[in-house]
Amino acid sequence: MNTKEKYIYRFGNRTVDGDESMSDLLGGKGAGLAGMTKLSIPVPPGFTIGTDACRYYLQHGVLPAGFADELKSAMHWLEQCVGRRFNDEQNPLLVSVRSGAAISMPGMMDTILNVGLTRKGVDGLARESGSLRFALDSYRRLLQMMGTVVLETPKAEFDAVMDSALKREDIGSDSELSEAALTDISESFHKAIARCSGRAFPEDAQEQLSLAINSVFKSWSNVRARTYRRLNGISDELGTAVTVQAMVFGNAGCHSGTGVGFTRNPSTGNSEVFGEFLTNAQGEDIVAGTRTPVPIAALASSMPEVYEELSAIVRRLESHYRDVQDFEFTIEKGKLFLLQTRSAKRSAIAAVRIAVDMVQEGLITRREAVTRIEPSTILEILAPQLDLSVGVPEIIAVGIPASSGAAVGRIVLSSDEAVRIAAMPESDPVILVSHETTAEDIHGMAVAAGFLTARGGATSHAAVVARGMGKCCITGAKSLLVDEAEGVLRIGDAIYREGDWISLDASTGRVFAGKLPMHSVDNEHPELDTILEWAIDLNHLDVRANADTPEDARSARLAGACGIGLCRTEHMFFAPERLPLVRAMILASDHDPRRAALSKLLPMQQADFEEIFREMSPLPVTVRLLDPPLHEFLPALDEIHAEIGLAREGGKREVIERLELLLRRVRELNEINPMMGHRGCRLSVTYPEMLQMQVQAILQAALTVKREGLNPQPEIMVPLVGSAEEMGWLRGKIDEVAGRVFEEHALSVRYLVGTMIELPRAAICAGAIAEHVSFVSFGTNDLTQMTFGFSRDDASSFLGSYLEQGLLKSDPFVTIDRPGVGALMKMAIKQLRSINPQMKVGVCGEHGGDPRSIDFFASLGVDYISCSPARVPVAQLAVAQITASVSMESEPAL
Amino acid sequence: MNTKEKYIYRFGNRTVDGDESMSDLLGGKGAGLAGMTKLSIPVPPGFTIGTDACRYYLQHGVLPAGFADELKSAMHWLEQCVGRRFNDEQNPLLVSVRSGAAISMPGMMDTILNVGLTRKGVDGLARESGSLRFALDSYRRLLQMMGTVVLETPKAEFDAVMDSALKREDIGSDSELSEAALTDISESFHKAIARCSGRAFPEDAQEQLSLAINSVFKSWSNVRARTYRRLNGISDELGTAVTVQAMVFGNAGCHSGTGVGFTRNPSTGNSEVFGEFLTNAQGEDIVAGTRTPVPIAALASSMPEVYEELSAIVRRLESHYRDVQDFEFTIEKGKLFLLQTRSAKRSAIAAVRIAVDMVQEGLITRREAVTRIEPSTILEILAPQLDLSVGVPEIIAVGIPASSGAAVGRIVLSSDEAVRIAAMPESDPVILVSHETTAEDIHGMAVAAGFLTARGGATSHAAVVARGMGKCCITGAKSLLVDEAEGVLRIGDAIYREGDWISLDASTGRVFAGKLPMHSVDNEHPELDTILEWAIDLNHLDVRANADTPEDARSARLAGACGIGLCRTEHMFFAPERLPLVRAMILASDHDPRRAALSKLLPMQQADFEEIFREMSPLPVTVRLLDPPLHEFLPALDEIHAEIGLAREGGKREVIERLELLLRRVRELNEINPMMGHRGCRLSVTYPEMLQMQVQAILQAALTVKREGLNPQPEIMVPLVGSAEEMGWLRGKIDEVAGRVFEEHALSVRYLVGTMIELPRAAICAGAIAEHVSFVSFGTNDLTQMTFGFSRDDASSFLGSYLEQGLLKSDPFVTIDRPGVGALMKMAIKQLRSINPQMKVGVCGEHGGDPRSIDFFASLGVDYISCSPARVPVAQLAVAQITASVSMESEPAL
Repeated sequence: MNTKEKYIYRFGNRTVDGDESMSDLLGGKGAGLAGMTKLSIPVPPGFTIGTDACRYYLQHGVLPAGFADELKSAMHWLEQCVGRRFNDEQNPLLVSVRSGAAISMPGMMDTILNVGLTRKGVDGLARESGSLRFALDSYRRLLQMMGTVVLETPKAEFDAVMDSALKREDIGSDSELSEAALTDISESFHKAIARCSGRAFPEDAQEQLSLAINSVFKSWSNVRARTYRRLNGISDELGTAVTVQAMVFGNAGCHSGTGVGFTRNPSTGNSEVFGEFLTNAQGEDIVAGTRTPVPIAALASSMPEVYEELSAIVRRLESHYRDVQDFEFTIEKGKLFLLQTRSAKRSAIAAVRIAVDMVQEGLITRREAVTRIEPSTILEILAPQLDLSVGVPEIIAVGIPASSGAAVGRIVLSSDEAVRIAAMPESDPVILVSHETTAEDIHGMAVAAGFLTARGGATSHAAVVARGMGKCCITGAKSLLVDEAEGVLRIGDAIYREGDWISLDASTGRVFAGKLPMHSVDNEHPELDTILEWAIDLNHLDVRANADTPEDARSARLAGACGIGLCRTEHMFFAPERLPLVRAMILASDHDPRRAALSKLLPMQQADFEEIFREMSPLPVTVRLLDPPLHEFLPALDEIHAEIGLAREGGKREVIERLELLLRRVRELNEINPMMGHRGCRLSVTYPEMLQMQVQAILQAALTVKREGLNPQPEIMVPLVGSAEEMGWLRGKIDEVAGRVFEEHALSVRYLVGTMIELPRAAICAGAIAEHVSFVSFGTNDLTQMTFGFSRDDASSFLGSYLEQGLLKSDPFVTIDRPGVGALMKMAIKQLRSINPQMKVGVCGEHGGDPRSIDFFASLGVDYISCSPARVPVAQLAVAQITASVSMESEPAL
Repeated sequence: MNTKEKYIYRFGNRTVDGDESMSDLLGGKGAGLAGMTKLSIPVPPGFTIGTDACRYYLQHGVLPAGFADELKSAMHWLEQCVGRRFNDEQNPLLVSVRSGAAISMPGMMDTILNVGLTRKGVDGLARESGSLRFALDSYRRLLQMMGTVVLETPKAEFDAVMDSALKREDIGSDSELSEAALTDISESFHKAIARCSGRAFPEDAQEQLSLAINSVFKSWSNVRARTYRRLNGISDELGTAVTVQAMVFGNAGCHSGTGVGFTRNPSTGNSEVFGEFLTNAQGEDIVAGTRTPVPIAALASSMPEVYEELSAIVRRLESHYRDVQDFEFTIEKGKLFLLQTRSAKRSAIAAVRIAVDMVQEGLITRREAVTRIEPSTILEILAPQLDLSVGVPEIIAVGIPASSGAAVGRIVLSSDEAVRIAAMPESDPVILVSHETTAEDIHGMAVAAGFLTARGGATSHAAVVARGMGKCCITGAKSLLVDEAEGVLRIGDAIYREGDWISLDASTGRVFAGKLPMHSVDNEHPELDTILEWAIDLNHLDVRANADTPEDARSARLAGACGIGLCRTEHMFFAPERLPLVRAMILASDHDPRRAALSKLLPMQQADFEEIFREMSPLPVTVRLLDPPLHEFLPALDEIHAEIGLAREGGKREVIERLELLLRRVRELNEINPMMGHRGCRLSVTYPEMLQMQVQAILQAALTVKREGLNPQPEIMVPLVGSAEEMGWLRGKIDEVAGRVFEEHALSVRYLVGTMIELPRAAICAGAIAEHVSFVSFGTNDLTQMTFGFSRDDASSFLGSYLEQGLLKSDPFVTIDRPGVGALMKMAIKQLRSINPQMKVGVCGEHGGDPRSIDFFASLGVDYISCSPARVPVAQLAVAQITASVSMESEPAL
């Protein structure tokens, strides 16, 4: 058995065993107290029992041998520090016993104040403090806390006693209770404890201390704490520290009090001490909210000396910790004590402003500033939000939060209707509500302010398009029933019609009826621009954008993207003037008519590419060849049936025949599992003329732009490759077209040919595929779908249960699954680099915009990531943080 | 440069350089001739130029240095052997120059006879042989063969000359041509050659020989040969040998002739010399088919001594080669020469009979007999076949051969109609023709004789069910258009109606109109039973059957299966009396009503399991928990819409409401990619009560059967597991139910819990999953789907192109893809065994019945494979062959 000599770390009276860096052992609270003591900030003396003692206790059910002696000796030291004696009736030493884990778990574990006070000690405390009321109040607080936390007495028992006392005395607050009332209350508390726990309240200070310490240790394993840890990914193995500290009393009269504060404003980032203070109270009173605190600034007039001291301490804390602090303090009869300090949580915009300010104040470096912002919070700063400050109205549905931000608009149930309304002068914004969206809804989505779908998850079509367009989107709101026939939206028994107002809060997935107010959005964030500039300066990994149009390309370039990592050509096929040509191509019965249709599409695609190359030159543009199954370009079966019905009524023989041909082809192309069907490069194998047209359009566009004196960098990317044979064959076709185009135009341009790795087989056989390509880009969306066998359009029906049961730690379509999909990527990259160490490797799935995923991709050594334009800043920041953390690790410690 | 000393291997005149084992070097023909010479069987002397010379020639375009000298010396030796001189005008030596690869490529490469004959030599030959006609005939044959093979003269040129000569002389056969006619013919041939090749026919024997040898080498690379090798998986690197052999003349008069034969009957396996003989002819005359040969047996009367000698040689060949031989012979003026011997191709049933006979004759061992049968040919023996001997009628459609055998019946276009017709007394067989089949068609499929679908591949629903039921099936016949509305089947412009006769040849995928005759099938195959018994005795790897019903279980057991490797419980849900209960369960809004519906299903499932356990006890039965998505159990949207329409007409408010609820639920459950949707163990996570019911039914059934004194071995298999967390959670639920059931019944039974590995992620994370299971079974169908991203229901639209382009070597749903899916399996098994060396590992996909896949699975060290009952004998034989080859390798060579 491990017989460790030291479990207890003292602080106070010029003794400090630990320091602020020891939070693993002392917990955040213990480390903070040790740190403040070292800084000579007034802190009540005490000691911290390390987390190792907790781990021992949880494992063996008893505290380690020798611990009792160490505790005794520490208490003896504490008695000497404060000049009081534990278990003494005349001048009793009271202590607080607080939990404190290495990673903050606010409110999850137990804390007990006033430990050491007994019935007999009350009189001594009263004499010593000069206030019987204070002593009685402290005693009833101890009873209340020990009772609920240690002695199995429900909180309701104590609340009932307090309520009836307040009622009897006809007062509003416990600070007004009389001494008699407090005496009665304690008696009632004793009875309740005896009844519920089957034992008397321990009137021995040592027993109180033991019970309190054990109870804090045990609270590590309570249900609340376990759940919190599971949700936050904290290990159950860590254990909690326990800090035993001499009590100081905020409830010792009107020159006493307790408060919490921040060294800067955590909402706005303004450089001002910010917080609240409650006179004649102990800490839990602020939390309870029964009395209304005053701002800390009020102390400036009520206790100016204390306020000045506090201000000085605050400055010292910030300059020492080099970060905004969240602190607790108590004033006992005009004397200030700090009880806790830790890095403060702050709003997204506050984090950005504080980081920039601190660099300007010389407190931190730019590199540090960049690491201070949680990347995903940038989306909060940039997105509009509902103003719920006037109250949260009834939630009519809840779906999957598929974007950040919010949107308010009138319901439309079809893309055509959305376009119709949007075309009207001064029309209100519209929200497109549908069962799900498909590529055919692009025109409606382009004009809608937000999308709400009954189906799909966080990476369904609607969600992906929304994030790409920077729009608001809620998917998978299962209770929605879109009745297109009747033109109504049903949610339960309620019916909403087209034109009704609706409000979406995409960051929480909540849907509200009516037109809610929005926060006015300030689109100017100079501090954010500054942070992002610093971030880009740091980056060692390129961030590209997924961009399908010249407009997307422009915003990508403005956002500082290093190129386009994914330009989806199919979006160019859905434009209204092109769709008939695309359909003619699909309906063609043979190669020749198909080529004829394609030759009409060629100049249109070429013009798109020219624009994009002009925007991006000389940055690379990765163009993906046509990916979706052809049936996505054809009308739905229902639609054709309806048209046939109409045509029959009209008796138009020719029209009927044309529609019947269409019907037949749609049926032929219809697929049971389109995700795994005739799509991606399979289209190029069966219809090589489509690949030929696209390659020709890409390279002719590049030649045109090159002639203009620019320097286009086309990269042709083949989707859904599964084998080296396939890639080799397609590579041959591409190079063949290139040779022909360059010869015809007597000009050539450098182009790369690469592939996506989005099938498990491509990852497994990556080495063989590597022989035929110059770059690969992991399509992590599809790779996740195939590896898990999860259709992202359908997974919402069970993903919720998986997350609830803890069977999945996070949505694998949001954050990359390291043990499964990640292992495949690792295996593939190892093979790729072994065949070609110069192989350019990228990631262009949705995960490219997720900071936790980016961290993993960086560890795999990818060369670039590509994400939707809206997420480019998020990714830039995430990458910068990885660079910063790597380079800071290798710098000498300060 | 490699200067090898020996490229030429002689045989004859008591000299043999090579032997029968050297076919890699000498080709099959050369090795056979060497072998026969060693056995003192009369063979015309000659020599074989090794394949290494061919490889050198193909690589360098010339023959190796020193080769010319070696050839000269060999020719000199040959002259001495036969007492004739090459290029001699008086007594010319003529030789045949034949190709001969290590692996037989019948008819793909070139052969030239009578090489060495010149215009001047004709007279000498005439003198020497006593027949001018014979000499002239030999010369025109040489001109014809050298012309077409070496001198770029089209065959049609020679045919035209021959035809006009026959017409001019008014005779029917070239053996009747006069000397004058033959002389004219040769002159015409000379002219044709000069015109087409631009050069005169070489009248020098040495030049003829060189041209002939080079031409044979070149013929290795001709288009026909390359195509044949690609189709048969033969390497292009091997090259061919060339055998140069003194001519013997079957065209030397009426005591001469040539023949081909088999040492036993290759169709029936009967032990009798079998073959054909043509008097006064050379080998190519038999192939040309212009004259009708007589059976070899006819020689018994026409040349009794030769016949006796031949019979003796045949016996010697068989006892030496220990296998049926296919031989060629020539009789020159009453003297017999053997020209070739090789193992004979034979029909499936002949292979079985011959193998069994040879064991009984003491010629081979049982172990060898087992290796002599190509496993997949067993299906041919057992399946009925169309009788196409009366001629092949018009093929109206071609699809994917999805089973063996054939079926003839009347068209039905729906399962309901199939059932209706089948229920009528003395009804004709029906063929279910549909766009595709789903699980809802099971009742129709059960009564149909065969299935024909427009969609799907070799492992689509229809195909899998067909093989399971041992029925005939053609899938993916794309030209079919099933017009259910009009109740007709359209193929191109033709229309077929329900009730029309149709015939399917499933082994080729051909569809014929009308009622074709079938071969009467003899279901008694005692020799096959014998072979399978021997096979089972050998097996070191268990063969189980996939069986869902007591009937399937019975046939599996009869076929000698070692257990059930996959019992799909969903098939039990589709029975007409159960479907309403299943639907009630699915439509239930909450856990409680769902449990109520399930409790009604429980006794039905339990009864099924009881029957199956009774059949199989004490063999293991692996029961897979419910796998398909729930929408498979609900009616299609169209159907409900139609019913609502009817109900509206009838004005039945209650019915309409019920249907609308159904419609809503069907819409909710509808999935875009059902293969990757809410199915498999995901159902158990979201609806644990379904898992609980099934586990309870399985274990209660086992207890019931155990009480009857039997020894059931239930193995509960969880489908579609993707992670250890999931499996651990489900394992907990299963054990919980088991504990409760055993306690309630005060009796327990041993049960195993395992999972399928059918998702790439499960394979990647197999080690972690292994902690929670006692066995795993690879679901190679789904694993192939997910790894390739190929939906097996949809892949037929592009798989054809992939196979044609050589981008896939074989259909990955038929033969396991080793580099991709196979690599995942290997990785998984390595992890599984490292965690638990005793882990039982099986395969239960369709690949379990494919011999090439079984070979791979055996190399991975799996414990068992499981396949459809019809394929159990195939798998047993394949496994036995692997065992035999492994153990024979380790036995000392004979």
